[in-house]
Amino acid sequence: MSLVVVGSVAYDSIQTPLGGRDDMLGGSGTFFSIAASAFTRTSLVAVVGEDFAADDLALLQAHNVDLTGLVTAPGRTFRWGGRYHEDMNGRDTLFTELNVFETFAPVLSPSQRESGFVFLGNIQPKLQDHVLEQVRSPRFVAADTMNLWIDIARAELCEVLRRVDAIFVNDEEARMLTGKRSVVLAAKEIQAFGPNMVIIKRGEHGAIVFNEDDIFYVPAYPLERVVDPTGAGDSFAGAFVGYLEATGDLSSENVRRAAVVGSLMASFCVEGYGVERLKRVDRVAIRERYQAFSELTRFGVLDL
Amino acid sequence: MSLVVVGSVAYDSIQTPLGGRDDMLGGSGTFFSIAASAFTRTSLVAVVGEDFAADDLALLQAHNVDLTGLVTAPGRTFRWGGRYHEDMNGRDTLFTELNVFETFAPVLSPSQRESGFVFLGNIQPKLQDHVLEQVRSPRFVAADTMNLWIDIARAELCEVLRRVDAIFVNDEEARMLTGKRSVVLAAKEIQAFGPNMVIIKRGEHGAIVFNEDDIFYVPAYPLERVVDPTGAGDSFAGAFVGYLEATGDLSSENVRRAAVVGSLMASFCVEGYGVERLKRVDRVAIRERYQAFSELTRFGVLDL
Repeated sequence: MSLVVVGSVAYDSIQTPLGGRDDMLGGSGTFFSIAASAFTRTSLVAVVGEDFAADDLALLQAHNVDLTGLVTAPGRTFRWGGRYHEDMNGRDTLFTELNVFETFAPVLSPSQRESGFVFLGNIQPKLQDHVLEQVRSPRFVAADTMNLWIDIARAELCEVLRRVDAIFVNDEEARMLTGKRSVVLAAKEIQAFGPNMVIIKRGEHGAIVFNEDDIFYVPAYPLERVVDPTGAGDSFAGAFVGYLEATGDLSSENVRRAAVVGSLMASFCVEGYGVERLKRVDRVAIRERYQAFSELTRFGVLDL
Repeated sequence: MSLVVVGSVAYDSIQTPLGGRDDMLGGSGTFFSIAASAFTRTSLVAVVGEDFAADDLALLQAHNVDLTGLVTAPGRTFRWGGRYHEDMNGRDTLFTELNVFETFAPVLSPSQRESGFVFLGNIQPKLQDHVLEQVRSPRFVAADTMNLWIDIARAELCEVLRRVDAIFVNDEEARMLTGKRSVVLAAKEIQAFGPNMVIIKRGEHGAIVFNEDDIFYVPAYPLERVVDPTGAGDSFAGAFVGYLEATGDLSSENVRRAAVVGSLMASFCVEGYGVERLKRVDRVAIRERYQAFSELTRFGVLDL
């Protein structure tokens, strides 16, 4: 197995100003794996409960996800409920039922320990570190995190940062983590903590990739209708890391392409509830939207 | 005169988390004219009080601004005070002293009436319309506005929109004006009101230009230190319209270049208090930052 992801598999209940859905397949590991499946096979390390639907297992398998690391534990699958604000940016958590996730202790199989590419979804930094202990000599490790861990587990998170190649954070998390107002200074300080690559996610404004000294601005695709923002960040990460693994090319030029692929996959994700749009993305759609991104940002030389 | 701008000339008092300054030269007409001066001569239609400093007049003249339309009226110059929030995005108005601006009724000279390019700064829509009545057959008219006018003078603003080629608004104003959540749908609806070109300003996230069917995403230059955001929008507009006037080329390719030039000029503006950085921008600095923008957004083809 060359790309392993450790994250959540969940049932999400979402309300937006446009409507809602209950108990949809979700979770960081799910969005990541399905997004990555456009480029490569992913090995998913996660836990589900006895209520996890056969259809959902089949969906993951149909997306080339290796499920030997998906444990079924006694009890119910992790559930999360959220309500998005009018502007579709902010959201409130309505409930969190950890269920089987509460005692999740990811264990990698011998082949997963040999993975070249690793993604640590947004779980407790201590668990992320526990996964890193098990991987033998990965070529590229990326991690996601959130404000909660910056708040209550900063030391453990800093330990993870010391050991990863890339970290995904949003503007607010970057500022929280560093106390720097400027996203440029914040990213530089996070780089000094360890990762060469800091990907600042900015929702409908796209992302900025700080990759050693290279700075790359990738827009978000301008959509007429955002249905459900859930999973956008994990879809970005899945396509980004999946593309890097599939191409095996970590040059700054290819990291830029990976970021565009990440942003376009996030744009597909938010066009439907849960994974309903994401699961239907094929290479034709990717090539078309990649071309649209090129058009969106292209400009000629200045004759001055 | 080929480019005429109608706007405010003011003394601003600014507080930011980093510090502050009192009674600095400011106002939409000022920022616009100085930004445009990198490319072309601007004719400024505005009013100041008897307290307006000779140094400030000299500064405008040194920037190739025609001041025959700058009226000195009995009383004090327009004053505005504001305090920026910790994140440097939001701000509170501390005071507004309209002073001579209260009775401002812009009158264009015969040569100004022949202008090919017109910029209507953020003043009452009724006054913007009053200016439009005086211009004979402009080639390109752009206007700025704000939430206040959308709120209290929507009908007059819609009348202005019917008559302009381009409108500058931010995300929030675009949504207020149309009730559309998606910036794409909002921009399309504003285009239906009249202007072919809708420039959505997004502060530290750059801007999106909707130009007939063309959509162009221009980032903001990632700065390590933002000193004072005041005037960024007017600097964008000044460089944008000034560049279009200087080149005389309204093709979509050139509009994209103009937007990059606008965004880079806004980035210079916010690097200093008031106009202190903006006034020192030369063509060498513009060329360098334009090249930096190219680097920031460039990516190769996808081999998939």
